[in-house]
Amino acid sequence: MDTVLERLKALRKRMDEVQADYYLCVTGDPHGSEYIADHYKTREYLSGFTGSNGTLLVGKKDAYLWTDGRYFVQAEKELEGSGIKLMRDGDEGVPKPAAFIKEKLKAGDHLHTDGRVLSSGFDMEIADAIKKKRVMFITDTDLAGDIWKKRPEDSARPIRILPDKLTGRNTEDKIQKLSVKIKDAGAASHVITSLEEQMWLFNLRGDDIKCTPVAYSYTVINGKDVYLYLKKEAISKKLLTYLEQMEICVKPYEIFYEDLERMQLKAPILIDPSSLNFRIYQILRMKGKLTEAVGPVTRLKSVKNSIEIKHLKDIYIKDSLVLARFLRFIKENAAKKKINEYEAALMLDRMRAGIKGFNGLSFPTISAFGANAAMMHYEAPKEDSAVIKEGSLYLVDSGGQYDGGTTDATRTLFIGDVNRKQKRHFTRVVIAMLRLQNAIFLKGCTGENLDVIAREPIWQMGMDYKCGTGHGVGYMLGVHEGPAAIRWRMNAKKAAEPILPGMTLSNEPGVYVAGSHGIRIENIELCEEIETNEDGTFLHFVPLTYVPIDLDGILKDEMQPADIEMLNNYHAAVCDKLMPFMEGDDVMWLKEATKAI
Amino acid sequence: MDTVLERLKALRKRMDEVQADYYLCVTGDPHGSEYIADHYKTREYLSGFTGSNGTLLVGKKDAYLWTDGRYFVQAEKELEGSGIKLMRDGDEGVPKPAAFIKEKLKAGDHLHTDGRVLSSGFDMEIADAIKKKRVMFITDTDLAGDIWKKRPEDSARPIRILPDKLTGRNTEDKIQKLSVKIKDAGAASHVITSLEEQMWLFNLRGDDIKCTPVAYSYTVINGKDVYLYLKKEAISKKLLTYLEQMEICVKPYEIFYEDLERMQLKAPILIDPSSLNFRIYQILRMKGKLTEAVGPVTRLKSVKNSIEIKHLKDIYIKDSLVLARFLRFIKENAAKKKINEYEAALMLDRMRAGIKGFNGLSFPTISAFGANAAMMHYEAPKEDSAVIKEGSLYLVDSGGQYDGGTTDATRTLFIGDVNRKQKRHFTRVVIAMLRLQNAIFLKGCTGENLDVIAREPIWQMGMDYKCGTGHGVGYMLGVHEGPAAIRWRMNAKKAAEPILPGMTLSNEPGVYVAGSHGIRIENIELCEEIETNEDGTFLHFVPLTYVPIDLDGILKDEMQPADIEMLNNYHAAVCDKLMPFMEGDDVMWLKEATKAI
Repeated sequence: MDTVLERLKALRKRMDEVQADYYLCVTGDPHGSEYIADHYKTREYLSGFTGSNGTLLVGKKDAYLWTDGRYFVQAEKELEGSGIKLMRDGDEGVPKPAAFIKEKLKAGDHLHTDGRVLSSGFDMEIADAIKKKRVMFITDTDLAGDIWKKRPEDSARPIRILPDKLTGRNTEDKIQKLSVKIKDAGAASHVITSLEEQMWLFNLRGDDIKCTPVAYSYTVINGKDVYLYLKKEAISKKLLTYLEQMEICVKPYEIFYEDLERMQLKAPILIDPSSLNFRIYQILRMKGKLTEAVGPVTRLKSVKNSIEIKHLKDIYIKDSLVLARFLRFIKENAAKKKINEYEAALMLDRMRAGIKGFNGLSFPTISAFGANAAMMHYEAPKEDSAVIKEGSLYLVDSGGQYDGGTTDATRTLFIGDVNRKQKRHFTRVVIAMLRLQNAIFLKGCTGENLDVIAREPIWQMGMDYKCGTGHGVGYMLGVHEGPAAIRWRMNAKKAAEPILPGMTLSNEPGVYVAGSHGIRIENIELCEEIETNEDGTFLHFVPLTYVPIDLDGILKDEMQPADIEMLNNYHAAVCDKLMPFMEGDDVMWLKEATKAI
Repeated sequence: MDTVLERLKALRKRMDEVQADYYLCVTGDPHGSEYIADHYKTREYLSGFTGSNGTLLVGKKDAYLWTDGRYFVQAEKELEGSGIKLMRDGDEGVPKPAAFIKEKLKAGDHLHTDGRVLSSGFDMEIADAIKKKRVMFITDTDLAGDIWKKRPEDSARPIRILPDKLTGRNTEDKIQKLSVKIKDAGAASHVITSLEEQMWLFNLRGDDIKCTPVAYSYTVINGKDVYLYLKKEAISKKLLTYLEQMEICVKPYEIFYEDLERMQLKAPILIDPSSLNFRIYQILRMKGKLTEAVGPVTRLKSVKNSIEIKHLKDIYIKDSLVLARFLRFIKENAAKKKINEYEAALMLDRMRAGIKGFNGLSFPTISAFGANAAMMHYEAPKEDSAVIKEGSLYLVDSGGQYDGGTTDATRTLFIGDVNRKQKRHFTRVVIAMLRLQNAIFLKGCTGENLDVIAREPIWQMGMDYKCGTGHGVGYMLGVHEGPAAIRWRMNAKKAAEPILPGMTLSNEPGVYVAGSHGIRIENIELCEEIETNEDGTFLHFVPLTYVPIDLDGILKDEMQPADIEMLNNYHAAVCDKLMPFMEGDDVMWLKEATKAI
């Protein structure tokens, strides 16, 4: 078996052959996907570092890996002996990759990277740094791929066609609507690389990437012509007929880059820099004027139609039911039976798999006890994960992919006797979640406006949670989707997007105390209109998630009457929604778990 | 006396002489001031329309005046017989001036305007419209001025120097700090046209504009050189010595434009398009690269220093005391004595004038009874203003300019028996104001984040107030100042600015029901730091305003215990702050007015 040292040696040999001074290896795939298939894990292959966020820069003798605070301990361990220096991203005095490159590289140096996996947005900073230093930037090589022995095959799983009864809107309609949006943006053609956008547009689903039912694809809309590039092995006869009936020109995924170079595109060309890769950006900018905007499909698919909403309401009840049953079991048995975090996650995943229409998890289940729950993206290890025992909190954040929707929910349980401070934190998180869930707001509001409704009760304690309050949730697609989000500070490059009726967003405030405990309560909310009057159009949220909130953590004397009423109303609704499915002693349990306080 | 018809005739004759096809006359002065001195009221002179917002376009035979909804009735009346067509700005189907010009003017047409009073920002739209139509745009004429008989003299009142004990920081320090900011913005020179910025920088105050203690001036910072242009008549020997000792080059205001044309400026030149006029913009863009940004002085002056804060706290108590006494008098006597809105305003203005250090009002007092209070910018007419009587609400919004600060406060009083609906609205407004006043938030927050804390209780009723929740307040300067504001929607051109310790902002939610009643409660808040811990730096507001809130309007049963506690705490503080100044039956009155509910 080859080691990281051997791999770096092979890479440097290859670098010599192509006269590269530095090789930049980022974490990404050609489509800007959130989860990366194994085939694209070049950074992991070269460095041995397995975290989900990392940027590797390899020089002739030196090498550097940037990752964030979640992974410092792990990276330190995994990089040991590799000669790669850990760059603690976010720590004071640690330069970002772009600043480092600007400082380190000399005029005339050759910097190589695989431009297909570099986002065109990410590149801007590096490109700027590079331009100022007059470094040569070569982006059409894949040096890691060249030396990777036994590289996992790129996936090409069969693609399925979703029936209209699941999507609520056929592809002709969607393409028609998209054409109008392209025109509205002042553009004449559009290149789509985001897999989720393409799946939505063509009513297709695939299985090429973990937790997201998408298939590798590229789409070019050129005036009235639509080109869809798919992997040959993924195309069935049925699929081909389906697409060709709509006059969509199906082409092999493998020839996309050559084809794009040859193609005459009507300008201006609409692109979304957040998902477009740098290689395509380079090709397109030679063809004509580019118009940069949020991909119109991103906006279109974020507003769910009435059929999608009907399915969502249905599947969320089924998903809530499973989560509620799991939570009851853990609460009553975990401590007695010495269940550990990993076993608990496995149990929940299996229970969820029993739901009709289940197609997989929407993200790896977070099952965390005690201090582990303070780590927002904790994944319980297979070996020696913490045993759930009395005296602390157990947090579970999980969701599934189903025919009929993508789910996501978090609850935190009190196991045995827990101290008052943690109850105080829990009570505040519940208040925060409920206040946002019950907000009424004018159309036009963004998540930047609404975030403080949830955050203020936490800020009042002199505490903060270092993440957004909510993210968009896809429909049978990514569990995180744009364009709207609930955060008080947006990414500087992105304008805040209004929250519109039909959007589904998570509502997940929390309290995280490093080394002690973590609390998060997460419901998914559907935005709906209440009324339009002379002051404008008023919107509110309706929960899709109906799972009891652990009353053992509630300090009633620290709640306002309005907060108590919101909690009781929510629990009454939970009881109402889940009761039809309850039998035997479950009936009494549900009544007790959702009783008014 | 000449009539509007005669004035338009004279203008058209002048237009013929210079071969102008259209004359555009906006409302503004060369410094982007909020209040305009009479000398610059050309639009009013030409059209007869006296409202504060209007844009006039005069053709050879036709003429058009744009104004907003506040002024439709008044404009209709004032324009009668003038042949000027009223353009109801904001109404559906009514084009904006830029769109109208684009539609109406033909290629080759000559459009004249006085570029000195046109903001460089405003012009962009018009310039764009004009460029596309290939219309000639001549901006160095003042045709209205040419024909204006008995035009009011441009003001040149004496300028006074503020002592360090009032400003807390001398001009050398301020210039030093500004130089750093210019450099930080990547610029080498800076032209300042905002009068408030210049007054702050040089620790001067003037009397050229109503309600704002400023003097006409221009400033050029060119590398290390500082040029200050002032009106000759405004410069005393003492002032000249003061400025020259600091090596500030004093020049006549009148030669500024010629001087600027001749001057060699180091590029890039920093400009703030929100206050810069178009004429200067035209001159500067020929000189070198322009860097557009919020004027650094705007940011510097918005953060009050400890000396300024000491004076502010002191003067706000004195101002609060006067307002409290006035409110008591109105509450107890208005109905009995048949006092009208205008008399009430006059009375309050006179009481305020008795405060030591008073230099004038900070804006015309809004004194409004019943339905008049629903108009946000109502000014009671001298003749036949409404009499304050039982059965509705009286709103007073007022403030003063003092040595030691600029004040602004609003209270709404219940006169006699008022129905429950209005009490419900009042209670909500009080809750809204108190929740924002008691907010705790992380440094970095903007008014776009915080606005909903006040607005949510109003939105919960399915109502909205059509204005921001708060504006910055100057120190012995404009009562409205940037860069921060508390609004949920910012002007598209302006990024939201963080609210920082030392800033003073108004907190003034309201309810306005057209034809019925208006409610506004306004305190000025000082932002202060609470603590810095591992989660960040936490800020909050401390009120500067201490005036009782009318308890007759409060429905205790519609408040949460936390809201009641905030009200009682605020009233306890009001009692505490004002009691030392109370004598006789005032003592009992204050206790009653601020009693815990």
